[in-house]
Amino acid sequence: MNYRMTGRLLSYVLLLEAALLLLPTLTAIIMKESIRPFVYTFAILIAAALPFLIIKPRNTRIFAKEGFVSVALSWILLSLFGALPFVFSGAIPNYIDAFFETVSGFTTTGATIMPDLDIAPRSILMWRAFTHWIGGMGVLVFVMALIPSDGGRNIHLLRAEVPGPTKSKLVPKLRYTSVILYTIYFVLTLIELIALLIAGLPFYDALITSFSTAGTGGFGVENTSIAAYRNPAVEWIVSIFMLLFGVNFNLFFFILLGKFREIFKNSELRVYLILTALSTAIITVNTASLFSSVSDALRTALFTVTSTVSTTGFVIADYGTWPALSKAIIIFLMVMGASAGSTAGGMKVSRLMILFKNMLRELKHMLRPNSINRIKLNGETLEEETVRSASNYLTMYVSLFILSFVLISVDNMSIETNLTAVLSCISNVGPVMGTITPFGNLSDYSAFSKIVLSLDMLFGRLEFLPMFILFSPATYRKK
Amino acid sequence: MNYRMTGRLLSYVLLLEAALLLLPTLTAIIMKESIRPFVYTFAILIAAALPFLIIKPRNTRIFAKEGFVSVALSWILLSLFGALPFVFSGAIPNYIDAFFETVSGFTTTGATIMPDLDIAPRSILMWRAFTHWIGGMGVLVFVMALIPSDGGRNIHLLRAEVPGPTKSKLVPKLRYTSVILYTIYFVLTLIELIALLIAGLPFYDALITSFSTAGTGGFGVENTSIAAYRNPAVEWIVSIFMLLFGVNFNLFFFILLGKFREIFKNSELRVYLILTALSTAIITVNTASLFSSVSDALRTALFTVTSTVSTTGFVIADYGTWPALSKAIIIFLMVMGASAGSTAGGMKVSRLMILFKNMLRELKHMLRPNSINRIKLNGETLEEETVRSASNYLTMYVSLFILSFVLISVDNMSIETNLTAVLSCISNVGPVMGTITPFGNLSDYSAFSKIVLSLDMLFGRLEFLPMFILFSPATYRKK
Repeated sequence: MNYRMTGRLLSYVLLLEAALLLLPTLTAIIMKESIRPFVYTFAILIAAALPFLIIKPRNTRIFAKEGFVSVALSWILLSLFGALPFVFSGAIPNYIDAFFETVSGFTTTGATIMPDLDIAPRSILMWRAFTHWIGGMGVLVFVMALIPSDGGRNIHLLRAEVPGPTKSKLVPKLRYTSVILYTIYFVLTLIELIALLIAGLPFYDALITSFSTAGTGGFGVENTSIAAYRNPAVEWIVSIFMLLFGVNFNLFFFILLGKFREIFKNSELRVYLILTALSTAIITVNTASLFSSVSDALRTALFTVTSTVSTTGFVIADYGTWPALSKAIIIFLMVMGASAGSTAGGMKVSRLMILFKNMLRELKHMLRPNSINRIKLNGETLEEETVRSASNYLTMYVSLFILSFVLISVDNMSIETNLTAVLSCISNVGPVMGTITPFGNLSDYSAFSKIVLSLDMLFGRLEFLPMFILFSPATYRKK
Repeated sequence: MNYRMTGRLLSYVLLLEAALLLLPTLTAIIMKESIRPFVYTFAILIAAALPFLIIKPRNTRIFAKEGFVSVALSWILLSLFGALPFVFSGAIPNYIDAFFETVSGFTTTGATIMPDLDIAPRSILMWRAFTHWIGGMGVLVFVMALIPSDGGRNIHLLRAEVPGPTKSKLVPKLRYTSVILYTIYFVLTLIELIALLIAGLPFYDALITSFSTAGTGGFGVENTSIAAYRNPAVEWIVSIFMLLFGVNFNLFFFILLGKFREIFKNSELRVYLILTALSTAIITVNTASLFSSVSDALRTALFTVTSTVSTTGFVIADYGTWPALSKAIIIFLMVMGASAGSTAGGMKVSRLMILFKNMLRELKHMLRPNSINRIKLNGETLEEETVRSASNYLTMYVSLFILSFVLISVDNMSIETNLTAVLSCISNVGPVMGTITPFGNLSDYSAFSKIVLSLDMLFGRLEFLPMFILFSPATYRKK
């Protein structure tokens, strides 16, 4: 392990977090709220980062191991320090609760333990939604966009942080890949902001909603999420952007370059759109009798489907009371999530496609034992290692699900609540069904369960490997 | 496809089923009930088998493809014809209900749609429990035990029918392997029968309970399952035998040969026993306050754990009302099941061990990309194909689970009910929690859902591949 270089990377991340506190501080100044929570946190972050900056790494080489450990530790540290403003402001007095809320923010889950947003400082809600925006695209991706370094090796950081079964650099130089991704992210967020302003949302609400949509998080300003605005235009706009932020960002880059063939070649996009349309259609029909008009039913179904599949978690209707068929589809979408290389969580459509193709290959192999079949995705032949990783991903998802489901059962909540809470956290969606409604919050869970669910969110966001490697003794063993 | 040879194998299976009707017919004579339901079914079976017996296969060679198709078709035909006595006797007038009940019997699931066993003919209940005993060890394994044939090629039938990730012949000649397995099965059943008679059960009840335990099925004589006997001795005996029938039968053979080292080398047995003990301990503590004494709590917990992990599904307490932690553990045991090469269903302990080891290998590979690691189980190095099959098994389990869960949701039962119904059927356990209690029955589901759940039971019992291959168009395509 190159501890010094890992420390150096972590100090960059802490400094970045300190810089990002500028936005909520500014909000506090405008809203005439106390800036102390942010100033204190800023000071603590600088103090924590300094020792690592003084120690110079003997070499800057990092391998997969350092990449995974740095990414996992970055996310844990970001959450540990990011929780401080909630505690200092008194908005969330309990530190474990504040940690849960911050993990939920950075991992873009959006599950909350805050019972009443109306009494929280506006600057705190800004910080809360801003963590979504930061976490959505990835923190080390951002660091890479800022700091020039010898490209080749940092690919390990990108691999560990960007979701999905396959990773590719858009351009030969890794730093420019990061810059391009963040530019697309920034511009799309800006377009949503403008659209929401036109639809009549106040600037503060529009900005927070845009941050939250872009990161596919789900934190908002109102206790009743987007339902509070009673504005169909806002619901349509947010639906469309949730769908867009669930698309592989590489595809937006190809659109900019005019490479439209790449879009049509992308089978993940096709399956993603078909499943979204199909789910929306079934849920519209299944819930039609609950609404006064078909257009209401359709808008609500589309919003719920795009919110779930993109793992955003905004809510405009209590779908916990919908028929079982609609709920089952929502649970499936929760587990699946959207596209690789987007800001969405879940297993990702492409990973499910790989698993499905691998299953079909096994059948073919049984019928013709001597045939050799390679698995293709988006028109390209996959490495066997990618296929094996996808299988292992499923094992990790299922193992973590079972373990967490058993562990949080000590709180004696209903099976449906625990089931959806764990799936919602691992897939970084947010809302829960059962005893807790999708509008509700997870404050009734014990501190123990909140820690379990926080870890679930981190494991899910980083797609298991970085967290498993961080906690594996073998990582620190000398060869 | 060697259609003629497949037809020949199927006709053997139908003739076998006709012969097996002797037992319920005998029961009907003794109990002074009508023998017509069985005589009619017998006649139909003979008539159906005849055409295949007349056509001579041009060659008797069968490959993996024919093996899988024969096994899948055998189980479907057995259930289609085996349902007839239920309909002819009027015990289950609806054919789809009768089909569900028969599939549940042969697959040793034990989920029932019969609302009141007290009014059913005794001969019908005997047939119902006997299907468990036949299905437990496998039908084609039985055919192989009876009919001499050129050993080598029938290994495909054994592979397709005997559960678990790895298959081995006990002795070089396949036919003797079948004979040995069935002898152990028969003797163990006999010992349980004697033990239950000593504990005070009437012969009829003891026989049915023994058939049901041996096949790890769960059908009984009483509406309230084993709880009806209010006999702790019976509960202890059944617990012990459920645990035993969840052990790999090869191990009993090794005991007979005095090869005790094989027992200690078997890591699957160790994990199986440890998980059973651990689950029993946690559930005993978790439910202690519900019982008048700790020994009652322990006996009930052990019974429930062995019943679930062995996928038998006998019930002595309504664990649907137990605390969430106990229920979560029961759901996990339901999914896992017991050992490979036993009569139990579920994923099997050894398969979970392979998946777990494969996951650890992926982590190791990430840390040291150049290291080569082979996976070992029970002291032996596994083929990579076995590992890949285990991963694909998990994909198939999860895919079938999600699909079935969504499909049966059209009946608008609760999430908990649908969740446990599908898991219970795929893993061949039987009882359901939620709106339906573990003592309850699935008659409230629609005909559509009953067919979905019937297929789940068949897919689960045959471990997916044979059924997938049967329904895959590629199977019938010419090369």
